[in-house]
Amino acid sequence: MTVTDDLLQANRTFAEGFDQGDLPAPPARRVAVVTCMDARLDPASFLGLGLGDAHVIRNAGGRASDDALRSLIISSHLLGTNEYLVIHHTDCGMLSITNEDLQRKLSLETGEDASHIDFLPFADLEQSVRDDVARIKGSPFIPPGVRVRGFTYDVHTGKLSEVDA
Amino acid sequence: MTVTDDLLQANRTFAEGFDQGDLPAPPARRVAVVTCMDARLDPASFLGLGLGDAHVIRNAGGRASDDALRSLIISSHLLGTNEYLVIHHTDCGMLSITNEDLQRKLSLETGEDASHIDFLPFADLEQSVRDDVARIKGSPFIPPGVRVRGFTYDVHTGKLSEVDA
Repeated sequence: MTVTDDLLQANRTFAEGFDQGDLPAPPARRVAVVTCMDARLDPASFLGLGLGDAHVIRNAGGRASDDALRSLIISSHLLGTNEYLVIHHTDCGMLSITNEDLQRKLSLETGEDASHIDFLPFADLEQSVRDDVARIKGSPFIPPGVRVRGFTYDVHTGKLSEVDA
Repeated sequence: MTVTDDLLQANRTFAEGFDQGDLPAPPARRVAVVTCMDARLDPASFLGLGLGDAHVIRNAGGRASDDALRSLIISSHLLGTNEYLVIHHTDCGMLSITNEDLQRKLSLETGEDASHIDFLPFADLEQSVRDDVARIKGSPFIPPGVRVRGFTYDVHTGKLSEVDA
């Protein structure tokens, strides 16, 4: 048994009790969240989101990458969201790496040139939130009426703190 | 009160009862999930994941985009995950758009040229899963021992179905 097989077994139990199969696609609360893939974050829990409430976009760092922007453009223009939360977190792995170190490690381990990959690390947690809020607000493809606010999440306390722009 | 303010109020309640502040960063079950941002999906619930168990990467469609690969490289090389699940879902918005239509809509609404943006839509749900599993397996930067399996999630039943490679 792999872990994946365990998760599939858990899904069978979940599906037996599933009774929310009629939700519409557009998020009920018209919100999108951009946050980190980190295993210690469960945005549905720490924001009190119910099924069907919000788009959730996650990647290493919770960065406003080109791909996160792609997702937010679809979220706003096709599915009607108009409030975005950017949430980075304390003790994030992206605070402890540099592109140069990770590119070198990958090249050594794989024999392939990794120097073209920007891993989007950051050195200052609050500044990375400000940068990503600004990047979203600055996109010509995000509707001007969309509100974007930035936060840090403390993995030790479960608390969000707003980052002033 | 905005919806964001409501979510912040929910977070205060969450933090008051939070007692999992000592989890380590590496995912306990050494698993990463790539899935869609869709509001009707809660991967922690439908896979039975606990806090600290798994990396969760989400974007429009659950695609193995360059940014999802960036996240998976960090997940495997720095945080030790070795099983990945790619999960697309029924009734996905990405099944009903084309790049040309969305690029045209954006250009009309914003006055900016959107023709350079690939929104990663797909016409065949199972094939898009196969494509993304193959893209991850084919990356020279994903360790060869990592297992990658693909699934569809039915938003009406809550059930996962495996997509054969």
